[in-house]
Amino acid sequence: MSSAKATTAIVPTRAEDYAEWYQQVVKAADLAESSPVRGCMVIKPWGYALWENMQRVLDVMFKDTGHVNAYFPLFIPLSFLEKEAAHVDGFAKECAVVTHHRLIAGKDGKLVPDPASKLEEPLVVRPTSETIIGEMFAKWVQSYRDLPLLINQWANVVRWEMRTRLFLRTAEFLWQEGHTAHATAPEAVEETMKMLGVYADFAENYMATPVIQGEKTAGERFPGAVQTFCIEAMMQDRKALQAGTSHFLGQNFAKASGIQYLDDKGVLTHAWTTSWGVSTRLVGSMIMTHADDDGMICPPRLAPTHVVILPVLQKPEHRDRVLAYCRALRAELKGTMYNGAPLRVDLDERDLRGGDKVWQWIKKGVPIRLEVGPRDIDSDSVFVGRRDKAPKDKQSVGRADFVATVAATLQDLQDGLLARARAFRAEHTKIIDSKDEFYAYFTAPAGTDANAPVPIHGGFAMTHFSGDVAVEKQVKDDLGVTVRCIPLGDGEPGVCPFSGQPSAKRVVWAKAY
Amino acid sequence: MSSAKATTAIVPTRAEDYAEWYQQVVKAADLAESSPVRGCMVIKPWGYALWENMQRVLDVMFKDTGHVNAYFPLFIPLSFLEKEAAHVDGFAKECAVVTHHRLIAGKDGKLVPDPASKLEEPLVVRPTSETIIGEMFAKWVQSYRDLPLLINQWANVVRWEMRTRLFLRTAEFLWQEGHTAHATAPEAVEETMKMLGVYADFAENYMATPVIQGEKTAGERFPGAVQTFCIEAMMQDRKALQAGTSHFLGQNFAKASGIQYLDDKGVLTHAWTTSWGVSTRLVGSMIMTHADDDGMICPPRLAPTHVVILPVLQKPEHRDRVLAYCRALRAELKGTMYNGAPLRVDLDERDLRGGDKVWQWIKKGVPIRLEVGPRDIDSDSVFVGRRDKAPKDKQSVGRADFVATVAATLQDLQDGLLARARAFRAEHTKIIDSKDEFYAYFTAPAGTDANAPVPIHGGFAMTHFSGDVAVEKQVKDDLGVTVRCIPLGDGEPGVCPFSGQPSAKRVVWAKAY
Repeated sequence: MSSAKATTAIVPTRAEDYAEWYQQVVKAADLAESSPVRGCMVIKPWGYALWENMQRVLDVMFKDTGHVNAYFPLFIPLSFLEKEAAHVDGFAKECAVVTHHRLIAGKDGKLVPDPASKLEEPLVVRPTSETIIGEMFAKWVQSYRDLPLLINQWANVVRWEMRTRLFLRTAEFLWQEGHTAHATAPEAVEETMKMLGVYADFAENYMATPVIQGEKTAGERFPGAVQTFCIEAMMQDRKALQAGTSHFLGQNFAKASGIQYLDDKGVLTHAWTTSWGVSTRLVGSMIMTHADDDGMICPPRLAPTHVVILPVLQKPEHRDRVLAYCRALRAELKGTMYNGAPLRVDLDERDLRGGDKVWQWIKKGVPIRLEVGPRDIDSDSVFVGRRDKAPKDKQSVGRADFVATVAATLQDLQDGLLARARAFRAEHTKIIDSKDEFYAYFTAPAGTDANAPVPIHGGFAMTHFSGDVAVEKQVKDDLGVTVRCIPLGDGEPGVCPFSGQPSAKRVVWAKAY
Repeated sequence: MSSAKATTAIVPTRAEDYAEWYQQVVKAADLAESSPVRGCMVIKPWGYALWENMQRVLDVMFKDTGHVNAYFPLFIPLSFLEKEAAHVDGFAKECAVVTHHRLIAGKDGKLVPDPASKLEEPLVVRPTSETIIGEMFAKWVQSYRDLPLLINQWANVVRWEMRTRLFLRTAEFLWQEGHTAHATAPEAVEETMKMLGVYADFAENYMATPVIQGEKTAGERFPGAVQTFCIEAMMQDRKALQAGTSHFLGQNFAKASGIQYLDDKGVLTHAWTTSWGVSTRLVGSMIMTHADDDGMICPPRLAPTHVVILPVLQKPEHRDRVLAYCRALRAELKGTMYNGAPLRVDLDERDLRGGDKVWQWIKKGVPIRLEVGPRDIDSDSVFVGRRDKAPKDKQSVGRADFVATVAATLQDLQDGLLARARAFRAEHTKIIDSKDEFYAYFTAPAGTDANAPVPIHGGFAMTHFSGDVAVEKQVKDDLGVTVRCIPLGDGEPGVCPFSGQPSAKRVVWAKAY
C-alpha cells in the first residue's frame, strides 16, 4: 500500500479518468456500494452518517420556516398517478409496479407470485408523492383557515434507472419532499422561492458548495409544474449538478386532486401548491465538489467525525501511556463546541499499522487527524494533519493550543473549501457572446483525442438566450449541453447569439449530471 | 361540541367500546388516518412528531451501545428470501411483489404494467431485512477483526395485512431493525439481551410503560430465529402488546447468507447474528397505555409540545397586551430545560373559540396547558391545566413559580403515568395455580353478554407451564389466550396446572394484540 503513496491514494486520478476516480473515492472512503438488487445501493455507515448530518441540519431549517413532518404511503394506486397528465408522462416509464401480495411455491418448488393474490389495481412504488399527498390535502383543506398547509416528508423513492451511479442516480434513493398548499398564487410562489433559498443557504454554508439559483426552461421542468427552480453546482470535471429543486405547481395538482377551500367570502377555490426536494444525490455532489486524488474531503460542518486521534502504538511498552493520554484528549475535545454542538471525535485504537490507519482516515476525508506518540506526549503536543493540506504537511502543535483553536481551525477549513470551490467555478465560467466561441468552448481543441478522459469542455457558459426551444434542442444534440438555469435576479438585456433574437438576460449552459 | 363536554371528549368511552375508543382517540388527537391505499396509513404531523421523538432517543441509545446506521435496499429478490427455510415460510404469505418496472397505456388508454418490462426475478418489498443485509455482511466480514459488526437501519417495511388498525397493524409501517454479527454465540446472546434491555429502559423511562422482559415460546418465535425475546406491555383493556423484539439468530442466517470469518487461528467459521426492532406500533401502544376518555395523554419526555400557551382573546381591546405577554412567556419557557433539552412550547394564536382550543389540546394530550388572560396578567400568573388531572381541575400559579418548577412538574407527570400504568398492571395480573381458575379468569362471568364491549378477561395470568405445545394450542383454541413470554430471571419451580408436569418457572399468559 505504501508504494502507491509515492503518487496518490486514489487510482486513477481525477485528471486520468474522472468517472472511475469517483467510483474509487466512494469505495476508498467506504461511503456506499452496489447491492445485488439491480440499481439499488447500500449506503454504508460513513456515507449514511454524512446523510444523517445533512438531514439534521435541513430538518431544523424546515421547521424554522414553519414546516412539520408527516408520513404518507409508499404505494400509489395507478389511478392517482394518472390524475395529472404531464406528471404521469414524466414517471410512467420508470415505475416499480406491485401486482401481487402473496408468494406461493411454483411447479419447481421455487416461490412465485400467487396468481390468486393479483391486485385489482396495481400499485406503483412512489417515484414522488404529489398525487397521494394531494389526495390527503383535499381531505384536510376545507377553509382558508386550513391554509397554508406546510408539510415535509423524509422518505425513500424509486425511479427505475437503467444506468446507475452510486448516489448520483440509483433506482431507490432517500430524500425529503416538501409539499405545501396556499390560498393564493403569490403565497405559493413565495414559498417556492423561500425553500430554494433554504437549499442555497444549506449548500453554501454546510456543503461548502457554491450554487447558482435559477429557473429551469420548459424542457427541464418537473412533470406537472408551472415553474421549476433549482440550485446548480459545478463539479470538478466542470459539469453541472442539480443539487435541489423547488416547484411552483400552480393549481395543476390542486385541480387533479380536488384541493379546494372556502375563501373568507365563502367562495370555493382551488388551492395553489408547491413541492421541493433534495436527496442522497447531495452526497455525490459533495464528493465531486471536494474530494481529491487522495480520497474524500468532508466539509467540517457535515463531517461524521471532526477529529480523529491516531495513537502511535509501535512499542508495546508505551501502549498504556499513549492510550491513556489519547483517551483523556478525546474526552477534552468532546467537551469542545463547534458550530453549536459538541465536537465529534474518534479514537482509532485498532491493531493496524500506523501508516495504514492514517491513510484510511485521509481517504474517508476526516477534517483533522492527530497523531500522538510518546514524544508528542513528552512535549504535551499533538501532530496535526489537515485534510485540506498535503498528507505529509503536518505540524506539531501544543495540546492546549490545539484544543483552544480547534473550532476555528475547522471553520477555516470549511471556509477554505467553499472559497476553493468558488474560485474553481469562477475559473471555469465564461461570458460568451458568439455561437462559434460557444461551440469551441464545449468542443475538444483540434488534435485532442475525443475519448480522452480529461474534461475537454470549458465549464459554465453564460450567454444571452431568447428561449427558443429549437435552439436549445440543437445545442443539446450538437454538444450535449443544456440550459442549466436562468439565474434569479436582474440581468442586462442583450441579443441571443444563436437566434439573433432579443434576450432579457444571460442563462447558464453546461454539460450536466 | 361543548354539549359533549358534560360527559367525555371521546365517544365511546374505553368502557363502552375499547376498540372504537382507540380509533376515536387517534382521530381526535390528529395522530394518523387511513389512506386510500389499502392497509397503508398516513401518519399526521402530531403522530409523526411522537415517532420522531422516539427515534431521536432510541438512536442515541443505539449509538451509545456502539451501533452505526446504514441503509439497505427496499427490494429483496425472491431467491434471497428463500435462503432461510423458516424465514420464507413466515413471510411468503404477506409480501408485496414487484413484477414490472414500467407502465404503458393499455387498450382503453388506462395505464397497465408494460409486459415487456416484466422482471426476470420478481422483487419483494422488504418485510424485514435479514436476507439482504446478510448478503452484504457476507461481503464485509472476512476476518475476526471485522467483528462484531453492529448496524442499525431506520426504514419502512411492508407486510400485507388483511385486517389493519392504525399504528398497531398496517401493511406499511416504519421501524428500526438492528442487525449484528459476532464471532461467538455468547457474544451474540449478550447483544440480544443488551438490546432487549435498551428497549425495556426506553419503554419504562420514556414511554412511561412498564414492560415484562421475557422469551417467546417456539410457536411465537421470529421465523428463522433460535430464540426470540420481547418486551410485553399491558394495555388498558388488559390485553398484552408486544412492544419490541430481540432475536438471537444463531448461525441460521449466517449459514443461509454465507457470513464466514477466519478466526485468530485461521479457521473459517460462520458468524453468529442477531436482529432487533421496534416500530411505529409503539405509538399505538402509548395511546392504549395512557390515553383516557378525553383523548391522548403524551408522556412528557416524548411529547411534541410540553407546554401550550392559550391566550384568552375574547376582548379585542386586550388582544395586543395578552399576545405580547404570551410571546414573552413562550420565549422564557423555551429557555428552560427539561430532560436535557430546551422545553418545547407552542403558543396557539389561532382565531378559534377559547373552549374549542382548550379541548383540541386536551385531546392531543399536551402535558401542560396555560390559559393566559388579562386578569392573569394583572397578577403576573398563569392558569395551569395538567393533562393527568381532570379538564376543569386547573389552578392559578405565579408566573415565576411556574417557570421555576415546570421541569419538575413535567417529570412528576411522567413519573405519575408510569406509576399509574404499573398499578393498573399489578391490579390485573394474577398468580393462578389451577386450570379451572385460569379458564374462569379469561371467561365472561355467567350472565355476561359475550358481545359486551367491556373487557371480560382478567388480564395477565402467571402460571407454571411445562412447555407442552399441545397445551398451548388448546388454551389458544379455547380462550384466544397465549403465552406472551417466559419472564427473564430466576423463578421458583412448580407444577404445570394444565399438564401436571414439572415447570421451571411461571410464564405470562394473556390475550394479545
